[in-house]
Amino acid sequence: MTAGLIMKSFKKELAFNIPQRMAFVNITGDVQNALAESGIKEGLCLVNAMHITASVFINDNESGLHADYAQWLEKLAPHEPVSFYRHNRTGEDNGDAHLKRQVMGRETVIAVTEGQLDFGPWEQIFYGEFDGMRKKRVLIKIIGE
Amino acid sequence: MTAGLIMKSFKKELAFNIPQRMAFVNITGDVQNALAESGIKEGLCLVNAMHITASVFINDNESGLHADYAQWLEKLAPHEPVSFYRHNRTGEDNGDAHLKRQVMGRETVIAVTEGQLDFGPWEQIFYGEFDGMRKKRVLIKIIGE
Amino acid sequence: MTAGLIMKSFKKELAFNIPQRMAFVNITGDVQNALAESGIKEGLCLVNAMHITASVFINDNESGLHADYAQWLEKLAPHEPVSFYRHNRTGEDNGDAHLKRQVMGRETVIAVTEGQLDFGPWEQIFYGEFDGMRKKRVLIKIIGE
Repeated sequence: MTAGLIMKSFKKELAFNIPQRMAFVNITGDVQNALAESGIKEGLCLVNAMHITASVFINDNESGLHADYAQWLEKLAPHEPVSFYRHNRTGEDNGDAHLKRQVMGRETVIAVTEGQLDFGPWEQIFYGEFDGMRKKRVLIKIIGE
Repeated sequence: MTAGLIMKSFKKELAFNIPQRMAFVNITGDVQNALAESGIKEGLCLVNAMHITASVFINDNESGLHADYAQWLEKLAPHEPVSFYRHNRTGEDNGDAHLKRQVMGRETVIAVTEGQLDFGPWEQIFYGEFDGMRKKRVLIKIIGE
Repeated sequence: MTAGLIMKSFKKELAFNIPQRMAFVNITGDVQNALAESGIKEGLCLVNAMHITASVFINDNESGLHADYAQWLEKLAPHEPVSFYRHNRTGEDNGDAHLKRQVMGRETVIAVTEGQLDFGPWEQIFYGEFDGMRKKRVLIKIIGE
């Protein structure tokens, strides 16, 4: 327990332009750097995709698993046929990406303890892109003391 | 970075009674109004379904996409046959709704920056109802300064 | 609205060693005890799995529903054949568990109001294990006043 602290707030954005339609990018180091820059020692760290065809999630930094995720998401919400999705009548071809993002989630909230991301042994933070070849951003917001 | 702030806390509930079994309702304006009422400028805003057959999530305000979500969720967790779900042996008929809610999520956490919901260009907040024709509530909790 | 409060921070871990591969454990009482111990009256409570083949989620305390979840998750991401998952080429057999965890989520954030978890009528917190027979942990982090 820590008490009697004055609240601080810190914000940072990360930028992406992924050359593939679907990819997973490890952003753990970027979030750790933002936390160090904030000087916050105890609090909560929100990391969220700012776009609605992308995810931020925590899982394993293992390429085989990422290939499993890609194959599984493609089965749950196939990109083709593009005409299957009513959303694509707007002129987009990313209807599937809006579904894939719901499975993987928009955001994660991470405890900050003694100035560190308070992680279990294998937790790593990933940006999940499901409609790449566009500029996208991730928001990091940390509050605490 | 902002520092030396004193923490504030604000709570508000939204009420729903959706005439269909499944529907998506844009609540972005309600959450913006709650934030304005709170006077909080920097912090985190939690928005969660208070019921376990409903969701709060962030995605696109596009009716074709919402129709895609409804069809996709019905495929992943069909309402019929009602007798398929062990949960429905309790007398309920909403076993499917408890599954659909897990795909779409219970809650979202949104950064508050300079008194605004800190959103990307297309982010909108939705209440997702999967077992309507009942009174339901959503909780908004904002902490910060 | 409450204002003029000084921020506090509290952390606690829960430990598990589930004898089955998949199980759901009600941890609502543990989180309530942690909140009472913290003395925090207004704020946010993060509860997250510290392992990447497990979930923390909020839903109904009903055994039929939990059996429905288990059957549904096994259909969405079957454990067998183990060789289906590229991740299992690392020597693991838990590729499916990493997928199941994404459907059910890593974490939940709960409002704290007047010293209580601010819950709707049926909300209960569960630890979801998808790769049991190992030591696992859950993190509770509460910030507020």
